[in-house]
Amino acid sequence: MRLSVEPSTDPAVYDFTHEIRVRFVETDAMGIVHHSHYLAYFEETRVAYLRRIGHPFTQWREDGLESPVLESFLQYRTPLRFDDVMTVHLRLAAVTRATFQMAYLITADDGTSDTVRATGVTVHGCTTLEGRPTRLPAWLRELGEHRS
Amino acid sequence: MRLSVEPSTDPAVYDFTHEIRVRFVETDAMGIVHHSHYLAYFEETRVAYLRRIGHPFTQWREDGLESPVLESFLQYRTPLRFDDVMTVHLRLAAVTRATFQMAYLITADDGTSDTVRATGVTVHGCTTLEGRPTRLPAWLRELGEHRS
Amino acid sequence: MRLSVEPSTDPAVYDFTHEIRVRFVETDAMGIVHHSHYLAYFEETRVAYLRRIGHPFTQWREDGLESPVLESFLQYRTPLRFDDVMTVHLRLAAVTRATFQMAYLITADDGTSDTVRATGVTVHGCTTLEGRPTRLPAWLRELGEHRS
Amino acid sequence: MRLSVEPSTDPAVYDFTHEIRVRFVETDAMGIVHHSHYLAYFEETRVAYLRRIGHPFTQWREDGLESPVLESFLQYRTPLRFDDVMTVHLRLAAVTRATFQMAYLITADDGTSDTVRATGVTVHGCTTLEGRPTRLPAWLRELGEHRS
Repeated sequence: MRLSVEPSTDPAVYDFTHEIRVRFVETDAMGIVHHSHYLAYFEETRVAYLRRIGHPFTQWREDGLESPVLESFLQYRTPLRFDDVMTVHLRLAAVTRATFQMAYLITADDGTSDTVRATGVTVHGCTTLEGRPTRLPAWLRELGEHRS
Repeated sequence: MRLSVEPSTDPAVYDFTHEIRVRFVETDAMGIVHHSHYLAYFEETRVAYLRRIGHPFTQWREDGLESPVLESFLQYRTPLRFDDVMTVHLRLAAVTRATFQMAYLITADDGTSDTVRATGVTVHGCTTLEGRPTRLPAWLRELGEHRS
Repeated sequence: MRLSVEPSTDPAVYDFTHEIRVRFVETDAMGIVHHSHYLAYFEETRVAYLRRIGHPFTQWREDGLESPVLESFLQYRTPLRFDDVMTVHLRLAAVTRATFQMAYLITADDGTSDTVRATGVTVHGCTTLEGRPTRLPAWLRELGEHRS
Repeated sequence: MRLSVEPSTDPAVYDFTHEIRVRFVETDAMGIVHHSHYLAYFEETRVAYLRRIGHPFTQWREDGLESPVLESFLQYRTPLRFDDVMTVHLRLAAVTRATFQMAYLITADDGTSDTVRATGVTVHGCTTLEGRPTRLPAWLRELGEHRS
């Protein structure tokens, strides 16, 4: 298992936030967001973060790089429901030569205050468009060094 | 609009049937299958039909062909629910040099008898892997002629 | 078939617009947005429109009403790709005592200008939470009258 | 973190297997199955397992019980592609008064032999239909005891 990061429930430790409103299609017959969709919320936030720091994922792909997910972990704490507006907090949490980890916290207002809905981690590798593993881009490794 | 086929509610006019069991992830907060997933049921059935007649879709792609959906029509009659086992009936309904239409009927047992749940049509073109429109494969045009 | 509206490709005839960015999860192995996800884009836009005009869909549900999709039609013209920002144009197009129709136009910038990507229509009924058909809310029938 | 099970890559330690064929809608623009859909494969297998052992999930719901996912872990090893037929192996791996864990292994033929594609774990609680936590059903706690 490469996953080594414990995602915090404290919004202050995260680098970036992104708002997403729950779609009806994402709910299930329990009346809550289906647990598989949180990975799409994390992905949308990751894409927004990479755009913000000047390395949009579309650019990665033009440069011949993919960033497959190697591992994912999720802890579901309080359900999200249709039309809830969540804040997804993201942190670049660990970087090696070949992998990086992102930590996530999802919060949403329950009518009284912001409450924790979920936390999670994704671990990513880097491959060519043909799927051959390759080193991370230099800027990402440097970003990781500045973080430690 | 290219769509010209009226999908029948009579199972006898269809060429092929395929069974699918509803997944929990496909339900929504109304407690029924979300209307967007019927297009995935049609697609799974289309893929099974092409495999059955000896022209699997994986072969199309190896031959450098895609078959994008140009139009879709759906009529939702009685909801499907979690764990329902549906029968998707498919008919190759119209073929031109550049497009073909598939008609669909979904039935499922409601505890007493098989009832109609939905009907639909998809219209398809044919393109190269780069997305340039091209003629349908000869076998498909011939199949269309034999049908008329 | 209840569907009677021809969706226009002219943005000027629509009442409301809503922007959506394509998620990576919505692409398929053809490298384009899978055709089933357009129905989710329409739905997200419909929900945003109802909120804007002061009748949020969450309120419908608290009032004991659902609005199931009875029919859908889609014409896919030019593919959407990962990270494209689309504008979904919506128009309340026809209202009867028991059903209403929404027309949709999706446009997106192709680098040079806004181009039409898809058009579509959804037809909706109105039911109680138990699924029994019921009349549309008065405000919606009035809105339909003002439109004709 | 409640998750305590290490999912094995040895098919022999699993209790139950279920076959699923990859749908085209489940692929993404990398040409592989999107990482979020593995949770749906696990869920379909879990539902099939509960049906097999005589406690179908539809019965749980009629008995007023839900089984929300509290945590999920996934390790993606070799991508699945369109039309691949996978075997999902499932094991009821740990049971307490209030939670149970399922471990999963996904294998598929790569043309030469069955290879490991992914492993994972889901942790589940038990709630009433209103979402209030409750004890697991007696049969499930007994099943857990017989396993230890």
